[in-house]
Amino acid sequence: MSSIETPGGASATSEFDRDTAVTLREPGVYDAELSAGWTIIRAVNGGYLLALLGRALGDHLPHPDPFTISAHYLTPSVPGPAVIRAETVRTGRTLSTGQASLYQYAEDGTEVERIRVLASYGDLATLPDDVRTSATPPAFAPIDQCFGASDSPAPPIPGSSAITERLDLRLDPSTVGWAIGAPSGKGEMRAWFGLADGRDADPLSLLLAVDALPPTSFELGLKGWTPTVELTTHIRCRPAPGPLRVSITTRNLAGGFLEEDAEVWDSADRLVAQSRQLARAPRG
Amino acid sequence: MSSIETPGGASATSEFDRDTAVTLREPGVYDAELSAGWTIIRAVNGGYLLALLGRALGDHLPHPDPFTISAHYLTPSVPGPAVIRAETVRTGRTLSTGQASLYQYAEDGTEVERIRVLASYGDLATLPDDVRTSATPPAFAPIDQCFGASDSPAPPIPGSSAITERLDLRLDPSTVGWAIGAPSGKGEMRAWFGLADGRDADPLSLLLAVDALPPTSFELGLKGWTPTVELTTHIRCRPAPGPLRVSITTRNLAGGFLEEDAEVWDSADRLVAQSRQLARAPRG
Repeated sequence: MSSIETPGGASATSEFDRDTAVTLREPGVYDAELSAGWTIIRAVNGGYLLALLGRALGDHLPHPDPFTISAHYLTPSVPGPAVIRAETVRTGRTLSTGQASLYQYAEDGTEVERIRVLASYGDLATLPDDVRTSATPPAFAPIDQCFGASDSPAPPIPGSSAITERLDLRLDPSTVGWAIGAPSGKGEMRAWFGLADGRDADPLSLLLAVDALPPTSFELGLKGWTPTVELTTHIRCRPAPGPLRVSITTRNLAGGFLEEDAEVWDSADRLVAQSRQLARAPRG
Repeated sequence: MSSIETPGGASATSEFDRDTAVTLREPGVYDAELSAGWTIIRAVNGGYLLALLGRALGDHLPHPDPFTISAHYLTPSVPGPAVIRAETVRTGRTLSTGQASLYQYAEDGTEVERIRVLASYGDLATLPDDVRTSATPPAFAPIDQCFGASDSPAPPIPGSSAITERLDLRLDPSTVGWAIGAPSGKGEMRAWFGLADGRDADPLSLLLAVDALPPTSFELGLKGWTPTVELTTHIRCRPAPGPLRVSITTRNLAGGFLEEDAEVWDSADRLVAQSRQLARAPRG
């Protein structure tokens, strides 16, 4: 059994790489350990889990980078052992498609499926340089005017959440009203995003970034949990070094569900990732 | 072998229902016939194919309506026989998750996978009425000022495309510049959408609607094919009777790929569906 090497020049000793490591047990089967370091209250963060699945698929498929990855969340994951089973659906010259599921173990040892993903992988390094994006980054306050986990008076993420120690998340002042009981009423959340240990961003950490901010429902005045039903992420470009800007918007809170649309911008002003998730709305 | 009944009060003799009918061969296996009536040039429309898969999954799972359905397109479909294999991934009280693949047959009879989908289904009729959407419909010209397939001087969809006869598609004048050689340069496409035979919209026809307009790349001045890699659709509400408005935007054309974001609004001004696809950009 040997660990999968970390791709892309990231420090092999980063917390993120250590905690998303997968170990090949046999072809298509990877053992993993879900770290308690990426939990919100007691739940393991969905973006962290997606990065684990993304790493396993990147090893299993002939192409390294997730271009589009669709995850359906089935049952809540908990810290502890897990196994990922990956399958090649189709291989092509520029894209290959794969499927993977993450399982944990019931008390009697049977596998319980937590998440299933379908993904199409390619090689971001081979893409042409043409950029005709008309999207522009939303306004972000300068990072030194944003609020980190250790800033008073209120912590941006309530409760005891281990993930706040792993992230360097700085919330834009215009989207932190919820933390002092004055939500904006708009479905918006914006933050500068980095890993606390300084590891540079790469396609796998982008999978974390799209699901690492407080939910937009907080700014809509709703408290409580917004469990993800499905999250699809497009990775469009390898991010430049430096902090990322993550902007999340919700436009359609209805019928007990809401969507969260995330955009991730790198330090070179490139739109490097887009995601959308369907989540259950909190009752609060 | 018996045909699956058409759900939701649609006319059983509509072209759409006839051509998306699936026949149960054995549990989880459905035979289908891909109609030549839903092709663009020679390719079978991806939204039509999604509706076929959506119908099979709605029969196979305990819940009737696709809440979120993620499709990865593997190989081009052609008119003719197909088989859909559906699997239940998880069943819950309010949501169930399933997977399905559509296959066609190679000359030697082996099955070739065309599309694979992961989807979470629920029952739209049971959702509470709370609507806090902040999204508002984009501006659409009145339907009688929009351009249908039979309007001069230029047909909105070039070439001989059977699907234009099945749809009542009226393109907004501000997004038809491409048809007379004067694309707007904006990644926008808007149209009123109905089925030509007058069948009312339902969740299955919404799966068609999100992928039935000319590609936004036409208005960006690009000609040629934009094959879908992945398309994820959220169905949020059962649509009211009457024509739908479909608005598609592209903000990120880069590296040889683009996203298309679709919104579908019903006659009651409800945002009934949201979708995003990743497609290959045309070379033109």
